[in-house]
Amino acid sequence: MNQREVNIREVGLRDGLQMVSTMLSSEQKLAWCARLVEAGVTDIEVTSFVPPKVVPQFADAAEVATGALAIDGLHAAALVPNLKGAQRAFEVGMRRVHYVLSASNAHNLKNVRRSTDESVEDFVRIAAARDELGHEVMLGAGVATAFGCTIAGEVEESIVLGLVQRLIEAGAQEITIADTVGYANPAQVRNLMLEVLALAGPVPVACHFHDTRGLGLANVMAAFDAGVRAFDASLGGLGGCPFAPNATGNINTEDTVFMLEAQGIATGIDIGRLLAIRETVAGWLPGEPFTGAIARAGLPATFVQREAVAA
Amino acid sequence: MNQREVNIREVGLRDGLQMVSTMLSSEQKLAWCARLVEAGVTDIEVTSFVPPKVVPQFADAAEVATGALAIDGLHAAALVPNLKGAQRAFEVGMRRVHYVLSASNAHNLKNVRRSTDESVEDFVRIAAARDELGHEVMLGAGVATAFGCTIAGEVEESIVLGLVQRLIEAGAQEITIADTVGYANPAQVRNLMLEVLALAGPVPVACHFHDTRGLGLANVMAAFDAGVRAFDASLGGLGGCPFAPNATGNINTEDTVFMLEAQGIATGIDIGRLLAIRETVAGWLPGEPFTGAIARAGLPATFVQREAVAA
Repeated sequence: MNQREVNIREVGLRDGLQMVSTMLSSEQKLAWCARLVEAGVTDIEVTSFVPPKVVPQFADAAEVATGALAIDGLHAAALVPNLKGAQRAFEVGMRRVHYVLSASNAHNLKNVRRSTDESVEDFVRIAAARDELGHEVMLGAGVATAFGCTIAGEVEESIVLGLVQRLIEAGAQEITIADTVGYANPAQVRNLMLEVLALAGPVPVACHFHDTRGLGLANVMAAFDAGVRAFDASLGGLGGCPFAPNATGNINTEDTVFMLEAQGIATGIDIGRLLAIRETVAGWLPGEPFTGAIARAGLPATFVQREAVAA
Repeated sequence: MNQREVNIREVGLRDGLQMVSTMLSSEQKLAWCARLVEAGVTDIEVTSFVPPKVVPQFADAAEVATGALAIDGLHAAALVPNLKGAQRAFEVGMRRVHYVLSASNAHNLKNVRRSTDESVEDFVRIAAARDELGHEVMLGAGVATAFGCTIAGEVEESIVLGLVQRLIEAGAQEITIADTVGYANPAQVRNLMLEVLALAGPVPVACHFHDTRGLGLANVMAAFDAGVRAFDASLGGLGGCPFAPNATGNINTEDTVFMLEAQGIATGIDIGRLLAIRETVAGWLPGEPFTGAIARAGLPATFVQREAVAA
């Protein structure tokens, strides 16, 4: 059995579902999770503890989180937008909680109606609440619009690095650098990720790319070359950002796994099973756009699928 | 004015048009060429000297070639499948002639009904005919299915390198390595292209990628990192290979230029003008699939377009 070299983290249930019009049942969401685990995807953002008024799709966050915690082999994570959401996640027993703020102040204001600085302060309070818990919780922090912003334009590297520093000091145990609006290019990714990795030291670093302008997979390779070994991706490329015009499209999980596995970089994920899950989920979400070159063209005859790896 | 660092060579008029059902007039093809030159695209494969029975779209090869030779600033090239085609190209005065054979013998047999070895011998005859001309002609040779084949599966690096060696010895003044069926991955590209560049020495080397499985642009970056500075691309991603199932999709010119220019790698090409030409050509080819992330999502607000560069 191969050692997993890169961790592909599924965000379709969270980043993907926040954009779709069809409401999935909790049972469907949990079946999706369970089948992903069978395919070798062990890190899944299963829901978001946002107010149901904001995203009705996540009104069942507690139920999905509880169900996901019961799935063997699944490292279930939840996104939280603020302290209140974090407390809800802690209450149901989530062991992995992700928080995100935007490097672009303008984007942060539009997304969560507070400044980036206020969001950092919020994260400090979340970390303090985590520290008061009787059990351990892995608290991750993401920096969105790290490669540019549709509203503010360019985002300085120094702003991103300053936020990474503050988030780690505040207790972040993992950093995710996100190209929320699909502005990143490979050279920019390589440069920034080398800096972030150097700064983060022992704190694990992941990347979250969108394929809005076709560079998603090239950016994954650039980040991999810089040393990043964890990537968010979405089954069928589902999802986007409500405040990034035309920013449909997280990088596609199947295509990302294909690109890495084709190069002999082990992900522990079975693409055939992913494609089968994709078909099921596409059937649940009529009319939603699904991307994917492998789903369309098939695997090369030369492709060697390795065994799915347990986490 | 910036120095051009990478040469993007347009193959839409050749690789693209060989697949479409609508016949374009010679006037349309030449207008397409002229506007590309205005946009900064100076290297264009304008036609193919194949028998009109095989590809009726190129029945006007001589007329298009002659017209293209009269366009200022255009380095017009023609593809030739055999000695007869080369002679037709020489007769109309083409100064750049491209020949292609497949590293996969099975693909070569299907494509041109002769073995790869026979195609090498054919190239030797073409080079001899070129040498007898009273004027200079740049003769380029391409190795197709260099990264794998839908019929034969894996293609050994040593076969590709052996062909490169023989083609250069036979008089090829430029080598193009082609992923005809969209099988290549970045690690494979980097490895093979480092070898090809070392072997080719002073002979220029280009790459020809298809985006069939989503890795086209990642492969461009891998080849660029290896040292390749010339790439074929097709406006709107038009084209494919008639014997590669689902292999629709040369890499898209607009997206390729965007990826490079966004990183500060000068192509000399104006993306806005490319997008305008794409719209015109799409109007001429109703029902044909056009790809392109930039055409769909637009350029980032942070993108800086540099001046188009004359060749």
